[in-house]
Amino acid sequence: KKPQFAFVSFVSSLIAKQSKHDMRRVIHSIKVGIALVLVSLLYLLDPLYKQFGDDNAMWAIMTVVVIFEFSAGATLGKGLNRGIGTVLGGGLGCLTAILGDEVGGTGNATVVGISVFVFGAAATYTRMVPSIKRRYDYGAMIFILTFNLVAVSGLRADKVIELAQQRLSTIGMGFTVCIFTNLLICPMWASDELHHSTASKFQKLASSIQGSMEEYFRVVNEKEKQPGANFADCKSVIHSKSSDESLANFARWEPWHGKFGFSYPWDKYLQIGDVLRDLAATIISLKECLQSPRQPSSNPRQSIKEPCEAVGSLLAWILGELGESIIKMEKCRPKSLMASKLQSMRAELSLLASPSKLGAPENGEGLAMASFVFLLMEIVEKVEVLAKEVEELGELADFQTR
Amino acid sequence: KKPQFAFVSFVSSLIAKQSKHDMRRVIHSIKVGIALVLVSLLYLLDPLYKQFGDDNAMWAIMTVVVIFEFSAGATLGKGLNRGIGTVLGGGLGCLTAILGDEVGGTGNATVVGISVFVFGAAATYTRMVPSIKRRYDYGAMIFILTFNLVAVSGLRADKVIELAQQRLSTIGMGFTVCIFTNLLICPMWASDELHHSTASKFQKLASSIQGSMEEYFRVVNEKEKQPGANFADCKSVIHSKSSDESLANFARWEPWHGKFGFSYPWDKYLQIGDVLRDLAATIISLKECLQSPRQPSSNPRQSIKEPCEAVGSLLAWILGELGESIIKMEKCRPKSLMASKLQSMRAELSLLASPSKLGAPENGEGLAMASFVFLLMEIVEKVEVLAKEVEELGELADFQTR
Repeated sequence: KKPQFAFVSFVSSLIAKQSKHDMRRVIHSIKVGIALVLVSLLYLLDPLYKQFGDDNAMWAIMTVVVIFEFSAGATLGKGLNRGIGTVLGGGLGCLTAILGDEVGGTGNATVVGISVFVFGAAATYTRMVPSIKRRYDYGAMIFILTFNLVAVSGLRADKVIELAQQRLSTIGMGFTVCIFTNLLICPMWASDELHHSTASKFQKLASSIQGSMEEYFRVVNEKEKQPGANFADCKSVIHSKSSDESLANFARWEPWHGKFGFSYPWDKYLQIGDVLRDLAATIISLKECLQSPRQPSSNPRQSIKEPCEAVGSLLAWILGELGESIIKMEKCRPKSLMASKLQSMRAELSLLASPSKLGAPENGEGLAMASFVFLLMEIVEKVEVLAKEVEELGELADFQTR
Repeated sequence: KKPQFAFVSFVSSLIAKQSKHDMRRVIHSIKVGIALVLVSLLYLLDPLYKQFGDDNAMWAIMTVVVIFEFSAGATLGKGLNRGIGTVLGGGLGCLTAILGDEVGGTGNATVVGISVFVFGAAATYTRMVPSIKRRYDYGAMIFILTFNLVAVSGLRADKVIELAQQRLSTIGMGFTVCIFTNLLICPMWASDELHHSTASKFQKLASSIQGSMEEYFRVVNEKEKQPGANFADCKSVIHSKSSDESLANFARWEPWHGKFGFSYPWDKYLQIGDVLRDLAATIISLKECLQSPRQPSSNPRQSIKEPCEAVGSLLAWILGELGESIIKMEKCRPKSLMASKLQSMRAELSLLASPSKLGAPENGEGLAMASFVFLLMEIVEKVEVLAKEVEELGELADFQTR
C-alpha cells in the first residue's frame, strides 16, 4: 500500500506546485493590469497631464509595458537601464544635433549620419560583449534609440531640453507606477527564488539518490518498472544553468531586500549550482548504470545491499542538511562531524571493493556492480566538495550559528 | 614532437575561431550602423517624410533599433511579431475607444480602464505560457502597448485610421530597411548555425573520447598532467540546450533559406542535441573515472589497452562519420556496416570483462578499471542511439545518398 500512497502524495504535491506556479503567474498578470490602468487613468482623468499631449502620455505607457517584469530585480534593472540609457543617449544626441546645426546645410546631414553610424555600430558591438550583454543589454538598446531620435530630430538646443524634461518626467512617472505595483503588491523577488531553487536542488538530488538505492535493491517480484520520475529531477538540475544565471543577475539588482543584505555572495550560489550540476550528472550515470541490461539479477546485488543503502541514506541525509542550512541560513553542523561521517562512508565502500564481494558474479554482472560502487564513491567525493562550498557560503553570507 | 604540434594547431584554430566569431560581431555592428543611417537619412534628407512629423519618424527608427537582431530568423520573427501585434492591438484599441466614446462622460474612462485591465492582464498571462513565450512573446508585448496607446488616446475613429495608416507605413518602412540590410549584407542564418553547431558537437565528442583514451593509456613518465581542455568541450555540449532551442526557434522563421526547404525537421536537431548531451555527460563520467585517484598505475592498465583503444578510435570514427553526414547532408553509411562494427565492439568489450583480465589488480584499482570499461560500454550504446537518430534525420530531411 505504501507505494500507492507515495504516488498519490507525489501527484498532489505536483498539482500543488503547479497551481502555486500558476498562481504566481495570475498575480503577475493582475499586477500588470493594475499598473496599466493606473498609468492610463492618470492621462484619462487628470487634465494636467492632457497638457503634455498624447506624445508624452505614450512614453509613460511604453515605460510600464516594457519595464514591468516578473521579478522585482528584473524590473528594477530594466528601469535603471532605461533611465541611464535615455540620459546618456539624449545628452550625446543633443550634442550631435547642436554640432550638426553649427555646421549647417548638407553638412548637417553628414555630421548626423556619420555620428549615427559610429555610435550605433559601437553600441551594438558593446551589446554583444558577454559581461555587458548580461546586465546592460537593454540600456545599450535604449541608448541607441534615444541617441538616434534626438540626433535626427534636429531641434534647437533649448527646445530639446524642454522636451527632454517632459519626456524624462513621464518616463519617471511610468517607472514610479511600475516600481510601486511591482514592489508593493505581492513582490516576487528573484533573490528569494534563487535561494529556494538552490536549496530545493539539494532535496531533489537527495531523493534521487535514495530512489536509486531503493530501485537497485528492490526484490525482483516487486519490481514493476516505475520509470524514474527522479530522472527528470536530475535533468532539471543539469539544465538549470541559464535560469540560475539570469536569476543571479536579477538578484544583484535587489540589494536592499529583506534577509539578503548588500553584496550578498550570489556568485557563490552559481558555484554551488555548478557543483550540483556535476553531482546530478553523476547521479544520472548511476541511474543509467542500474538500469543497464548488464546488471545482475537481484540475488548477487543483495551482497552489497546493506553498506550501499547505508551510504545512500547517509548521503541523502547530508544533502538534506546542506539544503536546510541554506534555506534556514544557519551554518551547517560542525565540519568535523560531517567529515568523519563521510570518511566512514568511504571506508565502507572500500570494503565492498574487495574481490570476495564482487568476484562471485559472472563477467558482465561483476562489471556492472563494480561500476555502481565506483559511481557511488564518486558521488561521495562530490558531496564532500559540496559540503565545503556550502560551508564557504555560510562564512561569506554570515549565516547564523545554531 | 607530435603533441606539441597538435597543441600549436589547437591554439591557432582557437584564435581563428575566436576571430571568426568576432568578425561576425563586427559585421553585425556595421550592418546595424548602416540600417540606422539609412532610416535616419530618409528623414533627414527627404522633405516628403518631414510632413509625417517627428512623431512618425520615431516609429521607423524605433522599429529598426528594436527589430534588428543578429540572425535573419530572429529579425524576421520579431518583425512579423511586431506587425501582427500592432495590427491586432490597434484594431482592438480602436474598438475600445469607439465604445468608450459612445458611452461618453465618466463612463468613457470606466470602459477604457476596464478593457485596459482585462486585455493587459490576459495578454500578460499568455506571454508566460511556454509555447507562446517561445515564439510570440514580443508580439504580445507590442499588442499590449499598441492597444493601450490607441485606447487611451481617445481619438475619433476617422482620425485613428489616418494615424494608423501613417504609423503602419513608417513601421513598414523601418521593417523594410531592416530586412534589406539584414538579409542582403552577409546574412547570418540561424539555421546554418544550428546545422553547423550540431555537426561540430559530433567532432567535439569524438575528439574527447580519443583524448580520454590517450590520457588513460599514456605511459606514466610521459604523464605531465595536461588538464583536460576537452572537458570544457563536453561541458559546452551539455550546456547547449537553451542556445539550441532558441536557434531552432529562429530557424523556423527562415523557411525559404537555401538548402533547408520548408518544414525542415528542426525538431529532430533538438532530439539529436538531447542524445548528444546525454553522451557528453557519460564522457565526462568517463573522464572523471580516469582522473580518479583510485585508478591503478599504468602497468595494469596496459592489459586492457589494445581493445579499449580500438573501441575508442572506432567510436571517434563513427561520430566523425555521423557529423560529416549531417554537415554534407548525405545519408551515412549503410546501417548494416555501422551496426556490425558496433556489435564487434561490444564483443571486444565483453571479453575485457572477464575476471582474468580485471581480477589481477588490487581492490580499488580493479573497481576503477571495471568502471572505465563499463562506461565505455554505455558510450557504445549511446552512439548506437545517435546513429539511429541521424539516420532518421537523413530520411526526414531527404539527405542525398552517396
